[in-house]
Amino acid sequence: MAVKIKDVAQRAGVSVTSVSRVLNGEKYVSEDILQRVQKAIEELQYSPSHIARSLKRQKTDLIGVIVPDLTSNFYSTILSSIEETATYYGYNLLVCNIAEDLEKELKYLNIFREMRVDGIIIMHEKSSPELLSFIQNSGIPILYSSVKSPDPDFVSVIIDDYQAAFQTVEYLVSLGHSRIAYIGGDMRDITSGQYRYEGFRAGLLRHGITPNEAWIRFGDYKIPSGREQMSELLQLSEWPTVVFAASDDMAVGALNCMLDQGLDVPKEMSLIGFDGSIIAEVVRPALTSMQQPIREMGKVSLETLHEMIMRPGKAVRKDLILSHQLVERESCLPLSTNKTN
Amino acid sequence: MAVKIKDVAQRAGVSVTSVSRVLNGEKYVSEDILQRVQKAIEELQYSPSHIARSLKRQKTDLIGVIVPDLTSNFYSTILSSIEETATYYGYNLLVCNIAEDLEKELKYLNIFREMRVDGIIIMHEKSSPELLSFIQNSGIPILYSSVKSPDPDFVSVIIDDYQAAFQTVEYLVSLGHSRIAYIGGDMRDITSGQYRYEGFRAGLLRHGITPNEAWIRFGDYKIPSGREQMSELLQLSEWPTVVFAASDDMAVGALNCMLDQGLDVPKEMSLIGFDGSIIAEVVRPALTSMQQPIREMGKVSLETLHEMIMRPGKAVRKDLILSHQLVERESCLPLSTNKTN
Repeated sequence: MAVKIKDVAQRAGVSVTSVSRVLNGEKYVSEDILQRVQKAIEELQYSPSHIARSLKRQKTDLIGVIVPDLTSNFYSTILSSIEETATYYGYNLLVCNIAEDLEKELKYLNIFREMRVDGIIIMHEKSSPELLSFIQNSGIPILYSSVKSPDPDFVSVIIDDYQAAFQTVEYLVSLGHSRIAYIGGDMRDITSGQYRYEGFRAGLLRHGITPNEAWIRFGDYKIPSGREQMSELLQLSEWPTVVFAASDDMAVGALNCMLDQGLDVPKEMSLIGFDGSIIAEVVRPALTSMQQPIREMGKVSLETLHEMIMRPGKAVRKDLILSHQLVERESCLPLSTNKTN
Repeated sequence: MAVKIKDVAQRAGVSVTSVSRVLNGEKYVSEDILQRVQKAIEELQYSPSHIARSLKRQKTDLIGVIVPDLTSNFYSTILSSIEETATYYGYNLLVCNIAEDLEKELKYLNIFREMRVDGIIIMHEKSSPELLSFIQNSGIPILYSSVKSPDPDFVSVIIDDYQAAFQTVEYLVSLGHSRIAYIGGDMRDITSGQYRYEGFRAGLLRHGITPNEAWIRFGDYKIPSGREQMSELLQLSEWPTVVFAASDDMAVGALNCMLDQGLDVPKEMSLIGFDGSIIAEVVRPALTSMQQPIREMGKVSLETLHEMIMRPGKAVRKDLILSHQLVERESCLPLSTNKTN
């Protein structure tokens, strides 16, 4: 028979009201009653919900994680790194895939709150007034990982997406390219959408290259959207000599489209990705890519959140900017070795 | 100020004990008290935990999902299909990545129980006495997806892995191959480990081919293990004419190793995968693969679990076997067109 609140009260020799007060974490409970109730709860293995188990130290060891898209190679890699670090610190992760649905995100955040998670990692930066209000008022340590927090008072673990995209263009220009196409991300995203795009544009302008708007397209970071955007690019009468995709998955989609249409990559057209996920290594030609330190990003995110949980009063630096790095593989050649087209 | 249990009692005009009995879901609470407490809870927006919110219909709309490895293309695809279907039925998913750790699995299952999830989907079939005891005694609807339940009384949504592997070998033999290597999965796994391996072996024997034990190797389904096993295969003095990998990710790892060593795939050596995940389409040569209906598997799993939740008394068929299908792409050629080696 299941143990009830009154059994706990009886065993502890206190009233049901006292047990409720302990369960609710109320402040004005005497140490004596607190200890008797906790002892009774343990002896009876009373567990009506997560509350009982966690009241001993007001910690549930749960961390809620919001992911925009589990099918992305980027997110599955960063998640596995967060998971490893969480295990090291004794946390359990609850991962919620919102599939870019803001209402779902709010629903999951409320579930996290009701579950009294110790902290929340959000990897999605599109926002709404309701979301903003939640993160500002929840009282739960919240950290943004791989994306910029919509509220500057919250910690973000990110790279400098603007600089990374700018330097990608510098690299392409150093190879002799000036006919540079761009397949960008969702412009509602601050870092992976806007910053990368702005960095790309600034890189062109720095070198006196007028952006060709027909060569600037946007996808949703996933493989099929890269393929679609590339297919439309190839229907234009004028072609770029290199395509810069704002995610490796989109670059792989674009690569597929190019190879399907019989293009020799990189001899006829070069291609460069962004992320440094494992898919960049396994396609042929292997993808040259501006690499984010994905696994380090996951580790630093969890460690920083852990610090926020353990020392609530201590200030944590607002933005933790990790370093990006260009990784040259096979998909990008100097222009002189490209055939003219 | 946070609403406390006594505020609810006051508003409802009942004792704290009555509120506790309602919160605990006890049976012998009068309909009048139940309604007054529920009304008070709603009016005061009392929410000490998930319990309060869910007591109205004893349903939390939460489904816990256990995944062995989030970095696998197979699991991220099936998860996104489960997620889509869950959204349709109004469920929220809590995904827990156990990274093949049985103790972690038990920990997460206990968390699911404390959170009173409506149901659980497990995609991991290695087991222990503690795990078996949990699933047999939890009282929560549990379904195994893409793997076989360790207890035959539980529902599994699977393909016939033995037949699928057997037919893969039949296909290779029909192409003239008899020198067939195998990179298998973890033999502690029933379906993806043992059944596929046994189907492979039976396929060889059916055609009078004696298995070459040096060509039979095992990985962990992931890309790097396919690369490692292939590298060891290529160090043998005698080579197979085709390699059959028990996951697409391992096949892609093997493909990388072959291409890195300058092998012409499929002209010098053919390769066939298993799963039909998106990575099979994006590598070159595109991977011929024995395809599982991954998205359908996710959909059927969630729908069946929903049925188990809604109609607890109704029998559900024990195993739901979905159909596999060979998808021919570029990585596998008839032997006559292979160079001799």
